[in-house]
Amino acid sequence: MKTKTKKTEKPSGASTMKGLVYDGPGKISLKDIQKPKIEKSTDVVVKITKTTICGTDLGILHGKTPSVKPGTTLGHEGVGIIEATGDSVRNFKKGDRVIISCITSDGSCEYCKKQMYSHCEDGGWILGHLINGTQAEYVRIPHADNSLYLIPEGSDEEALVMLSDILPTGHEIGVQYGRVKPGDTIAIIGAGPIGMSALLTAQFYSPAKIYMIDIDENRLKMSEKFGATDTINTSKEDAVKKILSETKDGVDVAIEAVGVPETFDICQKIVRPGGHVANVGVHGKPVEFQIQDLWIKNITLTTGLVNTNTTPMLLKTVESGKLKPAQLITHHFKLDNILEAYEVFGNAGKEKAIKVIIEP
Amino acid sequence: MKTKTKKTEKPSGASTMKGLVYDGPGKISLKDIQKPKIEKSTDVVVKITKTTICGTDLGILHGKTPSVKPGTTLGHEGVGIIEATGDSVRNFKKGDRVIISCITSDGSCEYCKKQMYSHCEDGGWILGHLINGTQAEYVRIPHADNSLYLIPEGSDEEALVMLSDILPTGHEIGVQYGRVKPGDTIAIIGAGPIGMSALLTAQFYSPAKIYMIDIDENRLKMSEKFGATDTINTSKEDAVKKILSETKDGVDVAIEAVGVPETFDICQKIVRPGGHVANVGVHGKPVEFQIQDLWIKNITLTTGLVNTNTTPMLLKTVESGKLKPAQLITHHFKLDNILEAYEVFGNAGKEKAIKVIIEP
Amino acid sequence: MKTKTKKTEKPSGASTMKGLVYDGPGKISLKDIQKPKIEKSTDVVVKITKTTICGTDLGILHGKTPSVKPGTTLGHEGVGIIEATGDSVRNFKKGDRVIISCITSDGSCEYCKKQMYSHCEDGGWILGHLINGTQAEYVRIPHADNSLYLIPEGSDEEALVMLSDILPTGHEIGVQYGRVKPGDTIAIIGAGPIGMSALLTAQFYSPAKIYMIDIDENRLKMSEKFGATDTINTSKEDAVKKILSETKDGVDVAIEAVGVPETFDICQKIVRPGGHVANVGVHGKPVEFQIQDLWIKNITLTTGLVNTNTTPMLLKTVESGKLKPAQLITHHFKLDNILEAYEVFGNAGKEKAIKVIIEP
Amino acid sequence: MKTKTKKTEKPSGASTMKGLVYDGPGKISLKDIQKPKIEKSTDVVVKITKTTICGTDLGILHGKTPSVKPGTTLGHEGVGIIEATGDSVRNFKKGDRVIISCITSDGSCEYCKKQMYSHCEDGGWILGHLINGTQAEYVRIPHADNSLYLIPEGSDEEALVMLSDILPTGHEIGVQYGRVKPGDTIAIIGAGPIGMSALLTAQFYSPAKIYMIDIDENRLKMSEKFGATDTINTSKEDAVKKILSETKDGVDVAIEAVGVPETFDICQKIVRPGGHVANVGVHGKPVEFQIQDLWIKNITLTTGLVNTNTTPMLLKTVESGKLKPAQLITHHFKLDNILEAYEVFGNAGKEKAIKVIIEP
Repeated sequence: MKTKTKKTEKPSGASTMKGLVYDGPGKISLKDIQKPKIEKSTDVVVKITKTTICGTDLGILHGKTPSVKPGTTLGHEGVGIIEATGDSVRNFKKGDRVIISCITSDGSCEYCKKQMYSHCEDGGWILGHLINGTQAEYVRIPHADNSLYLIPEGSDEEALVMLSDILPTGHEIGVQYGRVKPGDTIAIIGAGPIGMSALLTAQFYSPAKIYMIDIDENRLKMSEKFGATDTINTSKEDAVKKILSETKDGVDVAIEAVGVPETFDICQKIVRPGGHVANVGVHGKPVEFQIQDLWIKNITLTTGLVNTNTTPMLLKTVESGKLKPAQLITHHFKLDNILEAYEVFGNAGKEKAIKVIIEP
Repeated sequence: MKTKTKKTEKPSGASTMKGLVYDGPGKISLKDIQKPKIEKSTDVVVKITKTTICGTDLGILHGKTPSVKPGTTLGHEGVGIIEATGDSVRNFKKGDRVIISCITSDGSCEYCKKQMYSHCEDGGWILGHLINGTQAEYVRIPHADNSLYLIPEGSDEEALVMLSDILPTGHEIGVQYGRVKPGDTIAIIGAGPIGMSALLTAQFYSPAKIYMIDIDENRLKMSEKFGATDTINTSKEDAVKKILSETKDGVDVAIEAVGVPETFDICQKIVRPGGHVANVGVHGKPVEFQIQDLWIKNITLTTGLVNTNTTPMLLKTVESGKLKPAQLITHHFKLDNILEAYEVFGNAGKEKAIKVIIEP
Repeated sequence: MKTKTKKTEKPSGASTMKGLVYDGPGKISLKDIQKPKIEKSTDVVVKITKTTICGTDLGILHGKTPSVKPGTTLGHEGVGIIEATGDSVRNFKKGDRVIISCITSDGSCEYCKKQMYSHCEDGGWILGHLINGTQAEYVRIPHADNSLYLIPEGSDEEALVMLSDILPTGHEIGVQYGRVKPGDTIAIIGAGPIGMSALLTAQFYSPAKIYMIDIDENRLKMSEKFGATDTINTSKEDAVKKILSETKDGVDVAIEAVGVPETFDICQKIVRPGGHVANVGVHGKPVEFQIQDLWIKNITLTTGLVNTNTTPMLLKTVESGKLKPAQLITHHFKLDNILEAYEVFGNAGKEKAIKVIIEP
Repeated sequence: MKTKTKKTEKPSGASTMKGLVYDGPGKISLKDIQKPKIEKSTDVVVKITKTTICGTDLGILHGKTPSVKPGTTLGHEGVGIIEATGDSVRNFKKGDRVIISCITSDGSCEYCKKQMYSHCEDGGWILGHLINGTQAEYVRIPHADNSLYLIPEGSDEEALVMLSDILPTGHEIGVQYGRVKPGDTIAIIGAGPIGMSALLTAQFYSPAKIYMIDIDENRLKMSEKFGATDTINTSKEDAVKKILSETKDGVDVAIEAVGVPETFDICQKIVRPGGHVANVGVHGKPVEFQIQDLWIKNITLTTGLVNTNTTPMLLKTVESGKLKPAQLITHHFKLDNILEAYEVFGNAGKEKAIKVIIEP
């Protein structure tokens, strides 16, 4: 008789667990809910050891994502231990420690075959959105073979929570789509978790000058520690004027990491001929695109949801010490206190929060 | 009253020539003007044998390009014969037959070294804009070594006038920036000279399906001869609805070749996840960019002025018979009748005109 | 003596079938063998409707591939109908008509995630190599979701047999790795099935000049029909001399489609500075690489086994009529006469064979 | 016996200067030679302030480069001050401080327009090869507008001598052609100046693991300071065995920076499927290419002479402090002692020399 029962008693025995449930606009609560089970042969169930809160979760809480139905467990980030595997899962076994990707990928649809897992025809962003998510003791992960990453022996697991979403997002949609190159002058608009992720991963490609733009002095100071060479507080200075006066024709790459018309506007005004605007921010309304000025400037504008196709690459850079995700973590909470964590993360400026870790 | 006989005496003797001069908004006239001379050691003077009119020239005529000063000879396209060369010109000699590129390139500035001749710091689009252009008997071409292309022996020179501007524009800014690939489904919005150029050069890369969209039935019929597989007359049908119903998630590439908000709007609505919108049209006002829908779609939007860096490539495809530019030519005029040519080209729909050839 | 009527009874009833079995070097025979069954939940069993013979099969027959164990059913190409599916197969169902890819891909290993299915850690080239293949009435296909392609309604199925291996091989390893571009001058060395496939698919990218090089006059003539602009019979002419005299510094792309030192040597001697040598041929011994001449020439040399990642793209070009694979098919046989088919394909020159179709 | 005082009088007055002249195999001497003059309108004359010796110069001295005629002043690297400019030089004026590129580029030939300055039809590597070079008090630079780079105010000029040749060579032909990416495992074979340059510039792209391979313990130790994560002394260990045992299938990128069959051989044995071999070494004889093993491995092999097209990019990384070229400089000499400098550089192992600076 294994001591399994003792372990929180629930895993094998109990059929319920704690999970943070969306109860409709403005309402979330930590509840006893059904523990997930293997539903398809390609599923695994992961016991969450660490999870976190994303800006998107705040958006859901505020009712901005109607596709999330009340009753859904939130969360699409985290690390954990495989608890059970479906019959056709080949890459993972019970006991494996894994990073959960925020994007579920079936690995065989037209989009997955192009590495566009974001648009997987039987996946994409579904965790904590269309199916129950990771802010719970357990989570069911569909298409596990393509949607989890093994954690190397001896890793700092907490740091790897940053690889579920924000670091691949900053890297793929900000830095790679923006084509950051050695010697470039770049600007990142927004010093939140995604902007900071773009800042950290932009340095993989050795830009010469990195402007960080925000209205929060504390975040701007942090960004200097993370590698920004110049900061602009737009509550005090005109970013467009400053950048145009200090650069040759503007920046090579402007990364939008906020998601409002004002920040998009800065980007389109500071990009130089031949430059890139990489939009990472989640927008709620149209922007006015100054095509009467930009048609002639040979610019490239990109948008996108993360594919997490660079997660293996990012994992290698973490292992080698080139990327230090732990510095993004500012707060820790127990799952029992997750409502407090939402409170802190929801007031990130005041609380000086970047990312919060939550442990069941 | 033909002055032709006299004209042929001018090249060496006379110091004046005929040229089409912009006299301010709404006014152009064919005048006797100063014949150009070598001003810098990198200049050549070309005797024009064939030139043409661009949509941009109509824009200037209508006062839309205030950077063109009254007194400027218009035109930035043409072929001709080298009449005189500056001392440091190495690649051309008197008597050489050449294509004049609409873009002047010094070959040594930061932008030229990146093949972005459009933004040459001592060139770019200056012909018939900031300096006198090609709708004349002679034209001075600065930075000749980088701004002209030798015409191969035995070529159809008239056809090569299409290589001054429209074919490189359609190819580089439409097709290459749009990344047309074998098997793609693409849409070209606008069946004017630039849209037709995109249509012809898109076929270099073997897309499976090419939608051509316009309101002019005659042009749509022509486009079928040029290789369009499907046409949509937006005065009769809803292009967005039709394309979304006939394709999987929309088109891989949408090429905007008009330059108004309505056509840009079609593009942003029909592009599929991971797809490209290549804007070639010259816009006069902002467009509303539906980023609240597109942020998640991993699209790429590009803009640009032609670099003419693919002119040598295009020349090879013409030589090999893969590209047949002559089919774009619908009308012929003598330089003496250039005002009539402007009339016809300005009423292209009614006149069933695509490109008009003008011969001094 | 037709056994056809009987055969059609087998699928559900009988447990044996006919298959071409490798019996050791120099020996193959058509035998009654065990009909394959679903072994893993990701398998399907396909009833073969058409298959073919590859040069690689001849190599196996001649004992050149010791990794093939006696008793193995040969063949890695074909089309057919899904007979049975494993429990976790999602993309296919009984009755679906499919193209069988010569490469098996699990879709989730490190290599598959880079679209390098050729090096799949649980697949790659295994059909008719490490597991039983397609020259039989039925075949088991592992990792079916990633290793089969649905045949569109109304297609010419026979033509699509060419998409199992040779067309993707010529396209990916010859044309794409060789970076064929519009206006290029290219040379293909070897006018066998792979060289012909490179020839057909190179034209997706509109090269200006295509040299086809072989010693078989009949194949050279066929290549002209398929789009070669120039042919060189190396039994009569010196290909290197001819090409260097007719081109500027040599060819942009040289595609090696034979696999012997002599043909590799032609490639390295005709490639121009900045050009590409794309090796597609299967080699049995080292070659002398003239690096003392080539170190300074900025060339790129590539090698590779097909990934079949462009099969969906190729399928679209077939559907649209840009690619006509049927023209590669020269002979037809019943499975009962497959030994005769091997005889004919093994004497392809004399028999004027390119690809042979075999029908169970 | 200083001749310094006399020399400083020469620039404007005297018509002779000191220069290191190649007198035939095995013979070089410092002589009074003709001071260069402007010969073409695109020339400038540069007064050398710092130059250096390249491995190629040693090759010339040893008679390995018969294209160098006796009487030629050697050297193709250096920084200096513009002394005189031809009439059509636009980008530079007397008094400008410049980096001299080892590659001369006319900026307008077919190869220059593709940024392949190495194969410039009126340039390429000519300095200290086909025309007099930089190991002298003055040098004439043809096509100056495209062959020099302005030194930013306040730079460490000595460090910038490394940008004439070795840093662009290591970066372009080693790192860029080899496609080094974040997280990669790479190996550099040869820890001489070029290998060290590849090592420094590879780090622009954040590889996770960098093996440095050489037989010189001192250089291997230096390489650790420069960023190598692992070193292998092939006089003590088998590099192939070690790398294959420590990596998954081998390295992503192998950079050959020696130029002999043995080191090329290591590269071809350690490259993993899908990997790159970037040959930078100058080879004197063919190598045996193991294509019987490699045809199936989807590798890319590149070769090349530096284009110096990334010099502007490198300059920005130096300005921003990402690249520190000064650490490559181990010795200093006056021009009068250049024979001693050759002695030291020719015995680099014993003398622990990487790059030597020579000052007129």
